[in-house]
Amino acid sequence: MNNTEQISTLRTDCLALDQQDPLAALRQQFQLPSNMIYLDGNSLGAQPKAALNRATQVIQEEWGMDLIKSWNKAGWFDLPSRLGNLLAPLIGAKAEEVVITDTTSINLFKAIAAALHIQSEASDATVRKVIITERSNFPTDIYMAEGLTRWLDRGYRLHLIDSPEELTSAINHETALVMLTHVNYRTGYLYDMASVTHLAHQHGALCLWDLAHSAGAVEIDLHSANADFAVGCCYKYLNGGPGAPAFIWVPQRHQAAFQHPLTGWWGHAAPFAMQPTFDATPGIRRALCGTQPIVSLAMIESGLDIFKQTTMAAIRQKSLALTDLFIQLVETRCASHPVTLVTPRQHQQRGSHVSFQHEHAYAIIQALIERGVVGDYREPGIMRFGFTPLYTSFTDVWDAAEHLRDILDRQDYRADIRRNAVT
Amino acid sequence: MNNTEQISTLRTDCLALDQQDPLAALRQQFQLPSNMIYLDGNSLGAQPKAALNRATQVIQEEWGMDLIKSWNKAGWFDLPSRLGNLLAPLIGAKAEEVVITDTTSINLFKAIAAALHIQSEASDATVRKVIITERSNFPTDIYMAEGLTRWLDRGYRLHLIDSPEELTSAINHETALVMLTHVNYRTGYLYDMASVTHLAHQHGALCLWDLAHSAGAVEIDLHSANADFAVGCCYKYLNGGPGAPAFIWVPQRHQAAFQHPLTGWWGHAAPFAMQPTFDATPGIRRALCGTQPIVSLAMIESGLDIFKQTTMAAIRQKSLALTDLFIQLVETRCASHPVTLVTPRQHQQRGSHVSFQHEHAYAIIQALIERGVVGDYREPGIMRFGFTPLYTSFTDVWDAAEHLRDILDRQDYRADIRRNAVT
Repeated sequence: MNNTEQISTLRTDCLALDQQDPLAALRQQFQLPSNMIYLDGNSLGAQPKAALNRATQVIQEEWGMDLIKSWNKAGWFDLPSRLGNLLAPLIGAKAEEVVITDTTSINLFKAIAAALHIQSEASDATVRKVIITERSNFPTDIYMAEGLTRWLDRGYRLHLIDSPEELTSAINHETALVMLTHVNYRTGYLYDMASVTHLAHQHGALCLWDLAHSAGAVEIDLHSANADFAVGCCYKYLNGGPGAPAFIWVPQRHQAAFQHPLTGWWGHAAPFAMQPTFDATPGIRRALCGTQPIVSLAMIESGLDIFKQTTMAAIRQKSLALTDLFIQLVETRCASHPVTLVTPRQHQQRGSHVSFQHEHAYAIIQALIERGVVGDYREPGIMRFGFTPLYTSFTDVWDAAEHLRDILDRQDYRADIRRNAVT
Repeated sequence: MNNTEQISTLRTDCLALDQQDPLAALRQQFQLPSNMIYLDGNSLGAQPKAALNRATQVIQEEWGMDLIKSWNKAGWFDLPSRLGNLLAPLIGAKAEEVVITDTTSINLFKAIAAALHIQSEASDATVRKVIITERSNFPTDIYMAEGLTRWLDRGYRLHLIDSPEELTSAINHETALVMLTHVNYRTGYLYDMASVTHLAHQHGALCLWDLAHSAGAVEIDLHSANADFAVGCCYKYLNGGPGAPAFIWVPQRHQAAFQHPLTGWWGHAAPFAMQPTFDATPGIRRALCGTQPIVSLAMIESGLDIFKQTTMAAIRQKSLALTDLFIQLVETRCASHPVTLVTPRQHQQRGSHVSFQHEHAYAIIQALIERGVVGDYREPGIMRFGFTPLYTSFTDVWDAAEHLRDILDRQDYRADIRRNAVT
């Protein structure tokens, strides 16, 4: 893909790329509508065909036939850690360090609370009161930190940076926690996890990574980056199903100190002893709280199974080829229109989605959707396109860019419509 | 059922009761194994046959064919409140007062936090620092209150009562919150919600009810009881599926003051405006936090639909008839054995499950399960049997009691086995 300009000129070149693509066959394991080019897997991953069978098994056999026995017999009780262990290799985690449970928001709350608790026991706790994050972070990350610090009412405050470059000057001896999303949901900017974590640690801060837009799309090695905590989403690139429970990673070195206020019975050392006093279980399961939605949880395995058939290196290689191609096609074929690339050009700073700014971004996205090209709109003025190497083809990229060109050339969009900000 | 002793003497009498039972036909709407008498619907409700179709529709059509569009087109985003409105009449709630979301544990956290916040603004806030609950409450209720108050570190403390009679002396001017489970998970004791709430209010306390073991089994009128907050479980008597998301009720009079620290984007007034500052939505949806597990959530509707075909009064009437019958059969037919009724005899103090104490309770429950009679064991020494009027028949009750009698008469259980308290 060193010479994308030449090879992408023709659709037949993209067909040839698909024929050479070692991941191409994996697309058959997904249910994808034949009349749709789906470029929104960074928001909701496509359906692994195996997911329906898995759900049917859980509903019909495990729930329907074995009922209450399935908590043990079908392993429902162990699902958060068993699935966490399946996910672990995709993010550079070790066994018994990840559980799949609750939502990303709730898991952020646990991790922020635990980080502040650890910092509150340090000798410099009285001055170490700042949580650094990005103003353009996904809002729920900021909201959860806001909600937690306001309630804790112990002088913690948020410092919102406006660009990654501000990190170096922002992190100092007052920083308790650096909390960043590895790949920005809007711009697709990919942080260098190891260097940011190193910088935070140099100043005595802890580092919490939200992998919502990177898990399953980008090579991640939490241990080599020496990260402190991570959370992430299973319904985007991991294809776990709509609203599938999220994950939380706590490395073994932090597990003993991992304390948070959401101390539900699933995090108890002996949940069925029915003791009136909470006694946190020693391992990663102390990040659990209440009873999990088993059908939605179980389907995550169908998504994870597909990753066993390839490597994150192969996925990343194709991801960069797809995003390179899309950037090159839009910038050459739509050159006469005011579309501005928002996503970094450098590979090491780019996740697996590409965003372009345009005054009529919302209307253009609607026009694309009407033609079956599904990307999405994000405030302010962003057209966002996600590329999922497991099922996105090079021809998809070519066709999507061609529809965009045609819509722009013909002004085939309703420039008067605006997004309803509520839904 | 005024003369249960006579009519229950023979199994044929139970068959006759089933023939006269106006709810009998509803059993056909559930998937129940033919070789099982299922008396554990208070732990995990049985599978409505419609649930598989609903899940298939969500997975195959909504997720598989419409993908991201389903958030609006299939109403995924509105599910927590739409299903909450369907549930509302079963608990005496009004429209736009209930959402189905997260877990009971997480919802307890939100409600306790909101109650303490309301009390913290009262003129007597410095002395009103006690949360009253039962030592025998379901542990997660206690754990969540413990976790929240320890973390807040503002002098709140738990007062655990050992019997319902202690409430009168326990509630006083220091009481911030009375937090009780409407029907005790172990004993089946049913609180008088209206009188306890009245007592709490007389002393300036708020009242939070956990309806886990009463919603769908007992007539509940939250408004006539003047309750302040309620949470509950959708996977027990509501038959929503294993680990189905839980519910939280906030009456309109408390919604404006309802504040909690789990301020995720689903509780924002404009979640897609992507603002960096949290602005709680005005209504019940401020009790939401993160993205919900759609397949598990959607299946709850299949359970709720069945309730539309009857009334809570009819369900309660049958529930009392079933539990009366079981108590009478066990106490007469097992009279020579040391089984002691733990559940109250008075109707107004009894939920929909019946518990007996026995030295070898765990071993006996295992022997019953081997014969296909599924109740469960709860510490310490409790055999627990749940009766779900939507699908439990009078003949089931007779057969279960007869198996119990036979097991006891023949000592057909392994008295040496003990429960593993971890799982």
